[in-house]
Amino acid sequence: MQNITQHVPVSFTYEVRFTRHLFSTDNPLFANVIASASPDVARKALFVFDAGMHRHHPELFNHIRRYADHHTDTFVPVAEPIILPGGEEAKNNPVHIEKIHKAIHRAGLDRHSYVAIIGGGAVIDAAGYGAATAHRGIRTIRIPTTVLSQNDAAVGVKNGINSFGKKNFLGTFYPPFAVINDSQFLQTLNQRDWRSGISEAIKVALLKDAAFFDFLERKAARLDRREEKAMQHLIHRCAELHLDHIATSGDPFEMGSSRPLDFGHWSAHKLEQLTGYTLTHGEAVAIGICLDVTYSLLAGYISEDTWRRILETFANCGFELWVPELEHGIDQPKSPDSLFHGLQEFREHLGGELTIMLLQQIGEGVEVHEVSFDHYRRAIQRLKAFARAQTNIGIDQ
Amino acid sequence: MQNITQHVPVSFTYEVRFTRHLFSTDNPLFANVIASASPDVARKALFVFDAGMHRHHPELFNHIRRYADHHTDTFVPVAEPIILPGGEEAKNNPVHIEKIHKAIHRAGLDRHSYVAIIGGGAVIDAAGYGAATAHRGIRTIRIPTTVLSQNDAAVGVKNGINSFGKKNFLGTFYPPFAVINDSQFLQTLNQRDWRSGISEAIKVALLKDAAFFDFLERKAARLDRREEKAMQHLIHRCAELHLDHIATSGDPFEMGSSRPLDFGHWSAHKLEQLTGYTLTHGEAVAIGICLDVTYSLLAGYISEDTWRRILETFANCGFELWVPELEHGIDQPKSPDSLFHGLQEFREHLGGELTIMLLQQIGEGVEVHEVSFDHYRRAIQRLKAFARAQTNIGIDQ
Repeated sequence: MQNITQHVPVSFTYEVRFTRHLFSTDNPLFANVIASASPDVARKALFVFDAGMHRHHPELFNHIRRYADHHTDTFVPVAEPIILPGGEEAKNNPVHIEKIHKAIHRAGLDRHSYVAIIGGGAVIDAAGYGAATAHRGIRTIRIPTTVLSQNDAAVGVKNGINSFGKKNFLGTFYPPFAVINDSQFLQTLNQRDWRSGISEAIKVALLKDAAFFDFLERKAARLDRREEKAMQHLIHRCAELHLDHIATSGDPFEMGSSRPLDFGHWSAHKLEQLTGYTLTHGEAVAIGICLDVTYSLLAGYISEDTWRRILETFANCGFELWVPELEHGIDQPKSPDSLFHGLQEFREHLGGELTIMLLQQIGEGVEVHEVSFDHYRRAIQRLKAFARAQTNIGIDQ
Repeated sequence: MQNITQHVPVSFTYEVRFTRHLFSTDNPLFANVIASASPDVARKALFVFDAGMHRHHPELFNHIRRYADHHTDTFVPVAEPIILPGGEEAKNNPVHIEKIHKAIHRAGLDRHSYVAIIGGGAVIDAAGYGAATAHRGIRTIRIPTTVLSQNDAAVGVKNGINSFGKKNFLGTFYPPFAVINDSQFLQTLNQRDWRSGISEAIKVALLKDAAFFDFLERKAARLDRREEKAMQHLIHRCAELHLDHIATSGDPFEMGSSRPLDFGHWSAHKLEQLTGYTLTHGEAVAIGICLDVTYSLLAGYISEDTWRRILETFANCGFELWVPELEHGIDQPKSPDSLFHGLQEFREHLGGELTIMLLQQIGEGVEVHEVSFDHYRRAIQRLKAFARAQTNIGIDQ
């Protein structure tokens, strides 16, 4: 009998909005976002909080209740928020997903209800997975509260939790219903979390937008001093470049083998693990990018001047460019404790051939499918020397 | 700051193939399906079996191993298949999902590997959910072994398991990599499972294809006598109409409130529950459709002749058109034990306003948003009288 060929075109549309004081009663944005899809009936909304965010904003749910009292025609919050631990802990314990599922069941949420998640990238990933799998997907409003989640993790289409010791082993592709970035939440971040999101912005600038890199280079010290205007531009442009990549890559659900935005990530993932997650993801990405930028120099892709501009930009933002784990197992690439084992893990993660992004020039990457351990060993020494010089300069000043 | 509007167009394409003796060494289909996506490297494949299917085909995994030995360049089967219980039991216990995840982890499957599921709709739903959530989706090859799964459940884009006593509470939309219908598996079905898939074919014919209904009406008795040629046409055309609906409805991931293919399903779901699942889904759907066809008659949408043709077609296929549970709580619509409570559950399930599909004429449905209990009470009596007359005729013969 004849085959049947099935094409299923699906199109998702969502808005990334920028605001301040989202649940102030004179800010109509949150209610408008819900009313845009269901103007005729009040929908249920379950709130999920990041415990870290909640500590800094203990009154938030009272504000949400008061806000809801002004918008009873639009949404009704479920009586109590779910509170998840911040950081990887949210993604490491499946009990948090069960908690989300149980709350969705008890409150009788349906496919026209909402789960609003307020927190960092890990909590948004975990709670987003819970919401995506209940009733085959409850509408999710992501309200990221860190630089990294506002400019990268929370604006995309993925969610996930860790399992069997593997990062994001469980997860789905499930575009959010809306993303709302409230700059007010950034005020209470500590310096490391403030800084951590910057490396993803430098990354995407290096790969896609030389003018944006110029901006980041110029503003590096101000970003480190928490100048808000510079940070707002950084977040907006970085989110825009990420979203543009997802929309135009031709592979938003990553069915192929290439992961062009994973620049510097093979070593970053490994360094996170080798340091026992004492490095934040953003700090590890900064080092990972500097390593692959140095490799790009040694492989003849970029000039010394370009190399120096990039490393100095990271340093001026306050990033450390060196950890001793870079030299771990440098002569035993096959040892699981070697940094170089990260190359093999990365290839397995891609599920195809090895694809490493290097830099061609500022604003343009180049993919290679083979790398040399010797080049990498020299790149590590070069990075060490640069970082040492920076530190000495720092001490001299 | 300016909003960013994100459009994410995603397009899935898969083939539904028809064959016989899939794992016979002279049948290249299965290997070709895998080679089409990755001609250059042998991919891992995890097999999941329905215990019911496995009882009838105890040698299947040996055949698969022998088949794999002929195609070592294309795929490598994971050492042991996972065996799940057939029917709703596969969907009721989350331990089966953990089993799938653990097997995927242990075998090191990645996003370019395969999970091949051989069984009925429930096993395909459950194992499909496990595969869809590992690494954000392992490629799934569905090999349905019942009439219902070959013509309906397994050709679509959904998966799911039950939780908190709610059907399909957990699940995702995740199009398969391929569907392969092997008619050989139908030979070992018992008569009830053979018949059960027929009601979905009559349903989709009534809503979309009058000529297909004519065919089913003509062949009803032969279908009940297990004439294979008639059944193959039924499966092919029913699958085709389902796929066409998913592809052209404009809402393949069901983001709106309408579920036009749920004809007769509000009462079918409720009857399954009220009978303690002693009715199969297909048997319940037959009764549910006959009830709403009778309602359509009483509401003036269709003629008595049309009504009679439809009910006789179901009866000639061997379906019972009456169970006492139709009269349960007929005067207490708000009681959870009442058939009519199914209307409220169905509305909650849709998450919007009530939308019931009635019949306008053979080949064309009509959606209504209000129904009358009185009409339904009379429809139930009319259906009872028809069924009693049929039974008497049956006895007389």
